Amino acid sequence: MTSKAKFRTEEDALGDVEVPADRLWGAQTERSLENFRIGVDRFRWGRPVIRALGILKKAAALANGDLGQLPPDKVALIVRAAQDVIDGRLDGEFPLVVFQTGSGTQTNMNANEVIANRAIELAGGEIGSKKPIHPNDDVNRSQSSNDTFPTMMYVAAAEQLTGALLPAVGKLRDTLDAKADAYRDIVMIGRTHLQDATPLTVGQLISGWVAQLDHGIAAVEQGMKGLFDLAIGGTAVGTGLNAPAAFGDVVARHIAEETGLPFVSATNKFAALSAHDEMVVASGAVRALAGALMKIANDVRFYACGPRAGFAEIKIPENEPGSSIMPGKINPTQCEALTMVCVQVFGNDHAVAFAGSQGNFQLNVYKPVMLHNLLVSGELLTDACHSFNDHCAVGIEPDERRIRANLDNSLMLVTALNPHIGYEKAAQISLKAYRENLSLREAALQLGYVTGEEFDAWVKPEDMTRPLAS
Amino acid sequence: MTSKAKFRTEEDALGDVEVPADRLWGAQTERSLENFRIGVDRFRWGRPVIRALGILKKAAALANGDLGQLPPDKVALIVRAAQDVIDGRLDGEFPLVVFQTGSGTQTNMNANEVIANRAIELAGGEIGSKKPIHPNDDVNRSQSSNDTFPTMMYVAAAEQLTGALLPAVGKLRDTLDAKADAYRDIVMIGRTHLQDATPLTVGQLISGWVAQLDHGIAAVEQGMKGLFDLAIGGTAVGTGLNAPAAFGDVVARHIAEETGLPFVSATNKFAALSAHDEMVVASGAVRALAGALMKIANDVRFYACGPRAGFAEIKIPENEPGSSIMPGKINPTQCEALTMVCVQVFGNDHAVAFAGSQGNFQLNVYKPVMLHNLLVSGELLTDACHSFNDHCAVGIEPDERRIRANLDNSLMLVTALNPHIGYEKAAQISLKAYRENLSLREAALQLGYVTGEEFDAWVKPEDMTRPLAS
Amino acid sequence: MTSKAKFRTEEDALGDVEVPADRLWGAQTERSLENFRIGVDRFRWGRPVIRALGILKKAAALANGDLGQLPPDKVALIVRAAQDVIDGRLDGEFPLVVFQTGSGTQTNMNANEVIANRAIELAGGEIGSKKPIHPNDDVNRSQSSNDTFPTMMYVAAAEQLTGALLPAVGKLRDTLDAKADAYRDIVMIGRTHLQDATPLTVGQLISGWVAQLDHGIAAVEQGMKGLFDLAIGGTAVGTGLNAPAAFGDVVARHIAEETGLPFVSATNKFAALSAHDEMVVASGAVRALAGALMKIANDVRFYACGPRAGFAEIKIPENEPGSSIMPGKINPTQCEALTMVCVQVFGNDHAVAFAGSQGNFQLNVYKPVMLHNLLVSGELLTDACHSFNDHCAVGIEPDERRIRANLDNSLMLVTALNPHIGYEKAAQISLKAYRENLSLREAALQLGYVTGEEFDAWVKPEDMTRPLAS
Amino acid sequence: MTSKAKFRTEEDALGDVEVPADRLWGAQTERSLENFRIGVDRFRWGRPVIRALGILKKAAALANGDLGQLPPDKVALIVRAAQDVIDGRLDGEFPLVVFQTGSGTQTNMNANEVIANRAIELAGGEIGSKKPIHPNDDVNRSQSSNDTFPTMMYVAAAEQLTGALLPAVGKLRDTLDAKADAYRDIVMIGRTHLQDATPLTVGQLISGWVAQLDHGIAAVEQGMKGLFDLAIGGTAVGTGLNAPAAFGDVVARHIAEETGLPFVSATNKFAALSAHDEMVVASGAVRALAGALMKIANDVRFYACGPRAGFAEIKIPENEPGSSIMPGKINPTQCEALTMVCVQVFGNDHAVAFAGSQGNFQLNVYKPVMLHNLLVSGELLTDACHSFNDHCAVGIEPDERRIRANLDNSLMLVTALNPHIGYEKAAQISLKAYRENLSLREAALQLGYVTGEEFDAWVKPEDMTRPLAS
Repeated sequence: MTSKAKFRTEEDALGDVEVPADRLWGAQTERSLENFRIGVDRFRWGRPVIRALGILKKAAALANGDLGQLPPDKVALIVRAAQDVIDGRLDGEFPLVVFQTGSGTQTNMNANEVIANRAIELAGGEIGSKKPIHPNDDVNRSQSSNDTFPTMMYVAAAEQLTGALLPAVGKLRDTLDAKADAYRDIVMIGRTHLQDATPLTVGQLISGWVAQLDHGIAAVEQGMKGLFDLAIGGTAVGTGLNAPAAFGDVVARHIAEETGLPFVSATNKFAALSAHDEMVVASGAVRALAGALMKIANDVRFYACGPRAGFAEIKIPENEPGSSIMPGKINPTQCEALTMVCVQVFGNDHAVAFAGSQGNFQLNVYKPVMLHNLLVSGELLTDACHSFNDHCAVGIEPDERRIRANLDNSLMLVTALNPHIGYEKAAQISLKAYRENLSLREAALQLGYVTGEEFDAWVKPEDMTRPLAS
Repeated sequence: MTSKAKFRTEEDALGDVEVPADRLWGAQTERSLENFRIGVDRFRWGRPVIRALGILKKAAALANGDLGQLPPDKVALIVRAAQDVIDGRLDGEFPLVVFQTGSGTQTNMNANEVIANRAIELAGGEIGSKKPIHPNDDVNRSQSSNDTFPTMMYVAAAEQLTGALLPAVGKLRDTLDAKADAYRDIVMIGRTHLQDATPLTVGQLISGWVAQLDHGIAAVEQGMKGLFDLAIGGTAVGTGLNAPAAFGDVVARHIAEETGLPFVSATNKFAALSAHDEMVVASGAVRALAGALMKIANDVRFYACGPRAGFAEIKIPENEPGSSIMPGKINPTQCEALTMVCVQVFGNDHAVAFAGSQGNFQLNVYKPVMLHNLLVSGELLTDACHSFNDHCAVGIEPDERRIRANLDNSLMLVTALNPHIGYEKAAQISLKAYRENLSLREAALQLGYVTGEEFDAWVKPEDMTRPLAS
Repeated sequence: MTSKAKFRTEEDALGDVEVPADRLWGAQTERSLENFRIGVDRFRWGRPVIRALGILKKAAALANGDLGQLPPDKVALIVRAAQDVIDGRLDGEFPLVVFQTGSGTQTNMNANEVIANRAIELAGGEIGSKKPIHPNDDVNRSQSSNDTFPTMMYVAAAEQLTGALLPAVGKLRDTLDAKADAYRDIVMIGRTHLQDATPLTVGQLISGWVAQLDHGIAAVEQGMKGLFDLAIGGTAVGTGLNAPAAFGDVVARHIAEETGLPFVSATNKFAALSAHDEMVVASGAVRALAGALMKIANDVRFYACGPRAGFAEIKIPENEPGSSIMPGKINPTQCEALTMVCVQVFGNDHAVAFAGSQGNFQLNVYKPVMLHNLLVSGELLTDACHSFNDHCAVGIEPDERRIRANLDNSLMLVTALNPHIGYEKAAQISLKAYRENLSLREAALQLGYVTGEEFDAWVKPEDMTRPLAS
Repeated sequence: MTSKAKFRTEEDALGDVEVPADRLWGAQTERSLENFRIGVDRFRWGRPVIRALGILKKAAALANGDLGQLPPDKVALIVRAAQDVIDGRLDGEFPLVVFQTGSGTQTNMNANEVIANRAIELAGGEIGSKKPIHPNDDVNRSQSSNDTFPTMMYVAAAEQLTGALLPAVGKLRDTLDAKADAYRDIVMIGRTHLQDATPLTVGQLISGWVAQLDHGIAAVEQGMKGLFDLAIGGTAVGTGLNAPAAFGDVVARHIAEETGLPFVSATNKFAALSAHDEMVVASGAVRALAGALMKIANDVRFYACGPRAGFAEIKIPENEPGSSIMPGKINPTQCEALTMVCVQVFGNDHAVAFAGSQGNFQLNVYKPVMLHNLLVSGELLTDACHSFNDHCAVGIEPDERRIRANLDNSLMLVTALNPHIGYEKAAQISLKAYRENLSLREAALQLGYVTGEEFDAWVKPEDMTRPLAS
């Protein structure tokens, strides 16, 4: 009979549950699948969460071993099974979505069930038998969902920000830094209030972008430090009931070893369960980075605006046909994708901060939605920085002819005549040029205030790109 | 040679592109896949978008036929291919993500390529040959990405809100309305400022929730009306260049017929391409609905707070074990999932509104991110309303014993004595009861202001749940 | 003894309160002043709130008269005193701030106390004596803070949106509409993706802005309709306890008469006290309007970007010296002020929506902060629309020379040759022009594909600003 | 003739301006007053901004002296005038509002004009004569609005956060910390998912709030560090044109001395003018603090929920009559005011972050709105923390009787029997108690699993508030 082969029956406090026979998950995961059909296409947990669950459960098993709560053979089995989770060999066993119990209980149980059954497999036991490894008594030993899920949250988020986001931003930063250096001597017109202003160099312009990214990286590094304080050891309400007093410290030490990140046990477990202000701070820093990227991407696409009737001072790579009609129409599509990502990050951040304010008593029950949004922000910015770097930033080039034409055409350069002929005559030149649509040089010569040689000697835009010599 | 079989070469303005041989998409889709590896796990377009693309392309083909722009045989082929897209038979041919060109050009081209190749298949032609159906000249005829993508956006969003979200909210509303009716005579203590207040009935309480959902439904219905005004006919910049003057009207009519929704051609195409304020308004209405659901879900879980040391005035279904230790610990997990969805909707809405403000000149290039967020809000609220309804709301029951105990215990009932013994003596009773932890009746009798019979005759909470008789 | 003259002693349930002798407010207002020293410089209630309090109290007194709850002489006194409040003669008697009790109780009591004492003054009584008019028993008769404050909220907001905001937006809309008409024949280059695109007219461009404002006005008109449903009659928890059954209807009718707006009594008072989704919807509509204004202001300043090295296609008034050095540097300061207002409106809206989601049980206690933010949004947009209209929009002029130069220089015009020489030769012309920095005409003649006469006859940008003749 | 006395005529590049004769401000301030009538009631700059303008102008004068740009007598005059601005003696001379030029140019000129005229007064000169001190050439020497305004922004914000906000939060933190210590031995029921859970002590509960405030303080301290990097020295576009190379460093040193805060000159001036990511990061940290306060205030009001039909486990001060009917109805009004402030801070933060993303080229022109919102957030949280501390937190007391009753009534205590009689029998006891509405002790004795002595010896809630002994 085929149905016998397809399902096994598991029992929990509410009765029997039919679980697919070939799955390692158990009754509680199965109930969650049935009870929370919300956003199943887009909101399943991904690799960072599954990996962090594995790391947590491995570290907890080791700590239980260290502290005499589990015998070595059980520890070894759990560690092997958890390693499979860490390594991504069991990703298909984690089918649950973000919108479930607000403590993440069901995802914690998903991990417990899968690791227990995988350990049972490794031990040659019968899946679902809870022997020799029990999902609650062994895998979840000394733990509660209320401390494990936030511990996992912080591990997943910290690993993603340090391992994916910051390197991606750093790559873009380095690309731009090289551009700043390469174009440090090309003088261009400045623009403030979207109006022509005194000149700067292309290198100076790009150095501003680099500085913004440096600040953004530093902000994320600073803003995520709170994520290193782990809730583990607090168990159900923060008191540590049923866990050894040293459990939090020992687990955190194992997690730190596994990840290479400076995780410790949070000093106050009541705050660690009932609030996730650290996520809010981290998300706020990521948002600031997104704001910086938005400014940079906007600058790039406005400077590339053209080919004829815009600024057109920088050229960007042509990645796809912009139009079947017009060669030279290079749409700044990477800027568009990046700025859309930035907008999404702003939205995600909003959700994180809102959720973070909604804790009650001993628990904040918006944990999954906070984690999801911070992770998605990190993932999207990582991907978008790589894409923008590889398909756009690396190919940014100044259009020197256009830059020079705009610069030479600028009325702002008249400032350089002030020391020689006085403000008043300089202003007359500028006004004449503006009204009669002349170049400054033409206007100056027509008014007879300077000779051509004088004009050329005095009006040097590159001298206007630095402070007075001290 | 296998590689020959696996890829075909397509050419576009930038050169050759290798496209998987078994795919209906073409060069531009393939380039997008390579250039925009951003959020590929979570941000691919789903059913509502693909269906709306099919509807749009079918309607456009019919309109081109009506207006003499395409011969009947081409129209027929395109319509058949587009119908396959509508019906979901080609979903796998739409691999692109949200974060692409901000006009959605590549998704428009994805539809053009797939429909052209499917039409070619139907005609027995060679895929990739662009004969007899050309993706640009035939499928995209009289159109531009700049008018088709926003047209598709509004069709997808309007269909989802009317076809999925509103019915789901309506189902929950009806469930609650039945509860309001069933419990209309059970008097409970009111609470304002989180403090005991004068009584109301359980039915009145729930009627407030129903009214909020009614208002939310009305707000979405009103707020989405702008989505019925379609950009189609504006082509590249809103002027309608290269399209017949009647094209927008005729396409809109066909879309209205296909969907049963009152779509028309927008009166001003310049606004229709460069702004999507209609999406912002619609998203704002959806956000208001989410706020209403958040209030309702919070009420449900607070009223269910217990079993002993909280309000515990309503009971909700026990869907999964809340704790392995404590029977009676029913965690309000459906409320938690729903409120997390509401928080997500607030975040999504933020992204929509931000993006909507960022148009420049003749185009807003945040179209895809606006569409994605509104659709996800709609999907999540739809799913969450069904889940909350089926797994929680249908099982809401008052705990009459507890409700009565809280009511009888209330000091607020003293108000009913005012007309009989005066405010001052009533206040003395209330104060004595509060300070000495007595019931009102006990305090009243001890003070000797009323007899037991009088107290019971005068203090009737149910009389306090309605206005003065006029 | 001077201190005797400076203060009078009032008593309330908590004991004695010293109130400045020359003030009409009483004990509860005075306590609030002492207990809520939060944002006193910027967050006092202003004219719209004070006026609406007067309207409400006048209407309530009339209704109490109509329904036999107050004798005619008391009604007359209260009405006269309330009229003083309406007319702004007692604004100095309303010193309280937004951040107080979340039900607005203290502002309701402020109104009760001031109107009672003013009525006492009018009757020749002693201020503070509560005779012949008692603040609670007479002025607040049949009311509770919980229904009066939200009633006042909706009246204040509805009056401000209809009386101030919509006319201001309408004025700007009309200014722009006249511009659209005046410049309907000036052809300019279009821009999509910030890249040169096919042409449109200046009138078409501006018509898009007008359409956005029309949509924004309609959105606000639609979105504020819920504000016409008043909470009055619900009293403490929505049941109407202690109010005549008809009270809500009669008060609403009087308010409608006083304001000329279609106020009615809300059908469900439980929702009307415990939620303010109507404010959230209205704020969402105002936010959409702000988004539209942001797009318009951004367009204006980018089109005005120059004088030399930007688009410089429109000129805006010079209101203040942009720079002491450079004539012609006209900073788009009105655009800057307007877009900053739009950003503020987005922030205010966020606060409204957040607050709106936070109701519990029978009361939402974020009423004052919701009202404040919606009113400030309305005020700022009103002021900013007037300022932008008067100091910028009225003076917008196209720079026809520049517009023509950009247009003639455009490579997009090659599209017009397609029907005559085919796409391929047209593309060659465009490409040659782009690469060799030629005009299209030069490139076309050099390639020998057209004669000068043919080029001039075929390449007519104005023909590209409309659809195909049907 | 009186009009002669009332106005003086000043001239600027656009012509004559009539300025009130008794005012120290000049032409540019007057033009701004006329051109920007936006939010004049609520959006004038306040003390922190005026003080910071004075500090900046004093430091700039000193630096100009140090670097030989101004003679000592001019420096001395400017310093004396600027000191008057710092000390608040000229606040009435700063009438401008937030919504002006986006660079804050007019407020910079307001300071230049007022300080120049005050210096002229001090020198016995004629106001408006620009002799001996010229507003541009002397007061604004080596500066531009584009670097002075952001410098002032950071000084104002940093001073306010360190001088007002952090001390206010610290005071509240210390109050709560003393409470945590005082009530460290009172055991209460825990609540997770709003459901009864295992116990903790009141001290542990409050320690969680203290930890949140500690984290919030640390987050603000970290998050505001970027504010110490000043734009000064960048002048118009970041190149430092017209300023001595050392100007930024020297000014920053003087500002650091004046304020006692570690200000330095920003390393990259292009970023310092065109972006204010530091404000976004700081605002994000303040938002996290607001989120923490929201959680705390919500806990306080829910724990105080009563007096009968809620948790009622803590008592808060009665500051004003909650109701004229019911003694014991203490509305948690300070919690309500505080949470409304938190909501406002979320809105303000939204505006800051949005504005921060909108820079273009060499300038972000949303400076004033960013500054305003961060300052208002700081002010409101400062006021609200003082108010909440003084009028609520200091008076928080546990209701020990109620706490004990809720604890003794709890079914969760059955957990303590597990080691003695096994999980299964313990579960039976719990279930029986739940279903039959018994106490655990009653149920245990009725089932005969333990004696009364055993129950009392084994079930000790205080033992459940700590981890296993290691």
